[in-house]
Amino acid sequence: MIIILQQGLPAAQKANVLEQVNNIGYKVNEVETQAGDYLVAIGKKEFDIRTIGQLPGVADIFMVTDEYQLISRKWRVEPTRIDLGDGVVVGEGQFSIMAGPCSIESEQQIEQVVEHLKANNVKIMRGGVFKPRSSPYAFRGMGLDGLKMFHRICSENGIKIITEVMQVSQIEEMIDYVDVFQVGARNSQNFNLLDALGASQKPVLLKRGISGTIEELLQAAEYIFSNGNENIMLCERGIRSYEKAYRNVLDLNAVPVLKEKTHLPVIVDPSHGIGIRDYVEPMSLAAVMAGADGVIYEAHPRPEEAYSDGQQTVNFHASERLISRMRQAYALRESF
Amino acid sequence: MIIILQQGLPAAQKANVLEQVNNIGYKVNEVETQAGDYLVAIGKKEFDIRTIGQLPGVADIFMVTDEYQLISRKWRVEPTRIDLGDGVVVGEGQFSIMAGPCSIESEQQIEQVVEHLKANNVKIMRGGVFKPRSSPYAFRGMGLDGLKMFHRICSENGIKIITEVMQVSQIEEMIDYVDVFQVGARNSQNFNLLDALGASQKPVLLKRGISGTIEELLQAAEYIFSNGNENIMLCERGIRSYEKAYRNVLDLNAVPVLKEKTHLPVIVDPSHGIGIRDYVEPMSLAAVMAGADGVIYEAHPRPEEAYSDGQQTVNFHASERLISRMRQAYALRESF
Amino acid sequence: MIIILQQGLPAAQKANVLEQVNNIGYKVNEVETQAGDYLVAIGKKEFDIRTIGQLPGVADIFMVTDEYQLISRKWRVEPTRIDLGDGVVVGEGQFSIMAGPCSIESEQQIEQVVEHLKANNVKIMRGGVFKPRSSPYAFRGMGLDGLKMFHRICSENGIKIITEVMQVSQIEEMIDYVDVFQVGARNSQNFNLLDALGASQKPVLLKRGISGTIEELLQAAEYIFSNGNENIMLCERGIRSYEKAYRNVLDLNAVPVLKEKTHLPVIVDPSHGIGIRDYVEPMSLAAVMAGADGVIYEAHPRPEEAYSDGQQTVNFHASERLISRMRQAYALRESF
Amino acid sequence: MIIILQQGLPAAQKANVLEQVNNIGYKVNEVETQAGDYLVAIGKKEFDIRTIGQLPGVADIFMVTDEYQLISRKWRVEPTRIDLGDGVVVGEGQFSIMAGPCSIESEQQIEQVVEHLKANNVKIMRGGVFKPRSSPYAFRGMGLDGLKMFHRICSENGIKIITEVMQVSQIEEMIDYVDVFQVGARNSQNFNLLDALGASQKPVLLKRGISGTIEELLQAAEYIFSNGNENIMLCERGIRSYEKAYRNVLDLNAVPVLKEKTHLPVIVDPSHGIGIRDYVEPMSLAAVMAGADGVIYEAHPRPEEAYSDGQQTVNFHASERLISRMRQAYALRESF
Repeated sequence: MIIILQQGLPAAQKANVLEQVNNIGYKVNEVETQAGDYLVAIGKKEFDIRTIGQLPGVADIFMVTDEYQLISRKWRVEPTRIDLGDGVVVGEGQFSIMAGPCSIESEQQIEQVVEHLKANNVKIMRGGVFKPRSSPYAFRGMGLDGLKMFHRICSENGIKIITEVMQVSQIEEMIDYVDVFQVGARNSQNFNLLDALGASQKPVLLKRGISGTIEELLQAAEYIFSNGNENIMLCERGIRSYEKAYRNVLDLNAVPVLKEKTHLPVIVDPSHGIGIRDYVEPMSLAAVMAGADGVIYEAHPRPEEAYSDGQQTVNFHASERLISRMRQAYALRESF
Repeated sequence: MIIILQQGLPAAQKANVLEQVNNIGYKVNEVETQAGDYLVAIGKKEFDIRTIGQLPGVADIFMVTDEYQLISRKWRVEPTRIDLGDGVVVGEGQFSIMAGPCSIESEQQIEQVVEHLKANNVKIMRGGVFKPRSSPYAFRGMGLDGLKMFHRICSENGIKIITEVMQVSQIEEMIDYVDVFQVGARNSQNFNLLDALGASQKPVLLKRGISGTIEELLQAAEYIFSNGNENIMLCERGIRSYEKAYRNVLDLNAVPVLKEKTHLPVIVDPSHGIGIRDYVEPMSLAAVMAGADGVIYEAHPRPEEAYSDGQQTVNFHASERLISRMRQAYALRESF
Repeated sequence: MIIILQQGLPAAQKANVLEQVNNIGYKVNEVETQAGDYLVAIGKKEFDIRTIGQLPGVADIFMVTDEYQLISRKWRVEPTRIDLGDGVVVGEGQFSIMAGPCSIESEQQIEQVVEHLKANNVKIMRGGVFKPRSSPYAFRGMGLDGLKMFHRICSENGIKIITEVMQVSQIEEMIDYVDVFQVGARNSQNFNLLDALGASQKPVLLKRGISGTIEELLQAAEYIFSNGNENIMLCERGIRSYEKAYRNVLDLNAVPVLKEKTHLPVIVDPSHGIGIRDYVEPMSLAAVMAGADGVIYEAHPRPEEAYSDGQQTVNFHASERLISRMRQAYALRESF
Repeated sequence: MIIILQQGLPAAQKANVLEQVNNIGYKVNEVETQAGDYLVAIGKKEFDIRTIGQLPGVADIFMVTDEYQLISRKWRVEPTRIDLGDGVVVGEGQFSIMAGPCSIESEQQIEQVVEHLKANNVKIMRGGVFKPRSSPYAFRGMGLDGLKMFHRICSENGIKIITEVMQVSQIEEMIDYVDVFQVGARNSQNFNLLDALGASQKPVLLKRGISGTIEELLQAAEYIFSNGNENIMLCERGIRSYEKAYRNVLDLNAVPVLKEKTHLPVIVDPSHGIGIRDYVEPMSLAAVMAGADGVIYEAHPRPEEAYSDGQQTVNFHASERLISRMRQAYALRESF
């Protein structure tokens, strides 16, 4: 059950609502976000919701029976749109393209990507500075210095930054240089990190786990929202399967299902999804038609020289074609 | 190694070629299809293929190193197009739509579907008369009598029939009433059935196994081709996974991968793939953009009353919209 | 609902029972097996089962609510024991060992295996003469001639034969030379084959599908039983997963679960299960402790020269040790 | 390549070795653990390892070609044995039993479990105080206060504690009250946590990821070792699959494979593995025979009242029987 409180509610009135809900036998979680004050009440007993709904200070009340509540489309029908500033918005009504290298490697590399994005009117650049790697001996990214360089060049060029955060202690270090925090597949159930991102107010792109369920992804998003941050995007990035012909199985089934279950934007990562450069375009176009609100993919000036993930990274020529075709596909979808 | 023989080769010349290949230490499989005579030679020894290529009676020769040979795009670059008669062709250059109920149920049901297909210029109707069912106590289809009724109505209306064949002994019974034999996911490695369909000359739509690999699907097709039948379509129909939010995971990654590996047409079944009626449209449109040569889906006059698979079957209203949108998406893809 | 009829029931009494069950709105399946006459009635309406139970000719009646009925332990608590003749019995109360090569290759090979089995007091030999192979160009087995040779040698030595049947037409050809028909993983939902084996009266070992569920395996067994054959063994043989460190994931969880759900014997195949020779022993011993009624594994005089599956086949030295250890583990289990 | 340095090597000699390895073109990672000083050198160039092996200060040198190095059995043939103090050792040569509730709930609960363990001569108690939960609204454990109570009671009774750590900042808070840190399945690729545990010197039990590969588990262990901590146990706890008949698929195939690949102890968690109370015993016994060095399972005075995971938790009666039978099975295994 979600109880929406009136803004600026006097403490006594709020205490009264809390007491009444407790009296019914529900456990209450207080949630304050950028956009509002909510109570999430968890319990099983049936009762007339009007008894709560009519209390002073209660703006609205909804029964939600899923394991997740605040991110459910059952109470909030309007899609969430996330404003990154300077007119860059992610969510239904536009198609967001986010592109860039797997790893930030050098000033020159960033500049080349930025130039490519500007030439194609793409507003968001991806690039990792903290890299989760299976082996402790692999390249783990340029770290905070790389991020500052990344931020300097992008902010001079009106490009927003999305980059992965791997642990709680990095949030504070990174927050001034980042427009969207990315939570990687391996951290999709790192609940402490989700809690902390919920407290941070910065937009978050949350990737589905390596073999994460739809339900787990939605509950992970609920962690962030219930800690105070409504600006969440979900990202399908391929699931693990028995098939060896591709890196992962990009699961486009997730797109229409997520769009129905939640009001949050749904982004698709075809690069990690299928993991083979030549198939990024067809999978991206398929993602558009499946209903995605955006695509995040890996592009690099010279993919064959990339420090990581080169085999799934497209060059600028392919990237330019891809951007144009995705926009045409999106225009067709919008015409339906 | 594939050796293409000249048509009408005298027996002595053929025997000479066979002998020479055997001398190198390769095992030879003789293949005669609707379209040509081939030798598939399996071995590992390296040798100069010109020694075979220049023999009298040899039209051409190709080294193919995959486990599958005749269906590989490495030797046959031109896509296979399958002519069902009356101008109905499946394969690159057109987008094939196949629709109809899971099970054939009655004369009236067939007539209603046929009328719907004709109104939308769809030329191929699907419908099962032999139904593989997990439980021995479930409805197993109308059988041969149902097929004859199905065939009578369709042939009067210029509609081609695709229907599932479950065992070798049914091929002969069914062959006069069928335009395309469908091999279901549970029979995708029923090698005796594949052998027999290879000998039948009738087009075959071969579904990927319930957790079949791309490699297994291609080898299953090789069974059919190497037994004498080149008219094969491959069908992605969803794979089994841990995810419970949908029936299967429709694996659109398979589409661009199959299109690169083989010259055979690739069809997508979104109904079994995702298994939920409301998501058939987005997954079908995604399939178009991923590069599919056609879509096969379940439509029924009253899905909620269908004998089987009602939850994933669309009604005629949704079907009409779907057909129109798939054609627009295909037109866009072709414009690229 | 299972209705057990008295043996030798007059036709009129049986017709009366059928009519009464139909009147309640249940669909009735008549089942006659080696051991009894049953009616399996499928329906949802609630009623007092005593109204049927007290009818003349009804020996007993059970409500079973699973998708499978006749194989359920909910009505038949006593374990099924399958008598192969000459004192060889499979089922609770003994631990059955079945060993032999993947493929029957030669008279000498059979004789060597038979000698090995006799020396270790093993009574059942496995060996394929019809081999399901992913590639049409691979060795497909010695066929019927191989089976006749296999049978001649085994019957002279008091060894029972288990071998795979791949299609309906082979049943009649093979039946005189076989003690147990094996249904392979790829045919675990070949429903026509299951139906025909149900009519054959010969014991059947039914393997779980490549990614078959427990539920599907049980329903496949129900096909056989409901067609008239009670002599069924179930076989866990590994499921497909994302893990590449072994061929399959031998799923020993299936053993205690199957033992609770059904009265049929449960056999484990560690050779296909893990697919690596060195690990056959630990997985076999684990299978014993998990509660298996037997193990079927691949042994060959010279595994490195085997026509198929050599990498998972043990030699006689390892086989002898394995047999001894399994028997010790079984003795310990029995002592609990 | 692993270079084992002599203990107490003068800085100049070490610098010389580093320089020589760098000169060959290998990247060097310096590793100092409780037990020794190592250099892990990563590179592909072939060279005569004796040129390094004979340098002053080099005790030994090994080529290891796996992605993991320090945990490989290719260089360290002797099994790792982890001494928890007071004669409690984990590793080959003994069979370790770890039991206790999913969640620490109360003083009385801890005391009851401790009494049960002492009565059965079990030396290690499991129990969570920080609980990873899919939903943000679920019980998340008693936290640090719970741990202190847990530690007080156990230390008075000579029982060692294993409990889960979820984030870097908890390590310091928890370290004085813990004997073994457990890394849960959801954190198995939380690389920052692994790094920090590597620096902590406290023994670590590392669980396989929810759909983690053997390779990933081994590389995660390499993170810990290469950061300075050799005291690592690996834990198989079930993998995610399509099967709905049990919570996870306890993958006992991992046991013999891990035992061959690494010198680290291998522990099995049957409770999370199969997730159903009644099957914990057969799976535990199977784990023993598969070669496990220990079992960790959930036991509670009243499982039906447990705060979490009650359905997979055994009561003390079942626990007592299980302990006795596991020890008998282990004795049999050791007799082989």
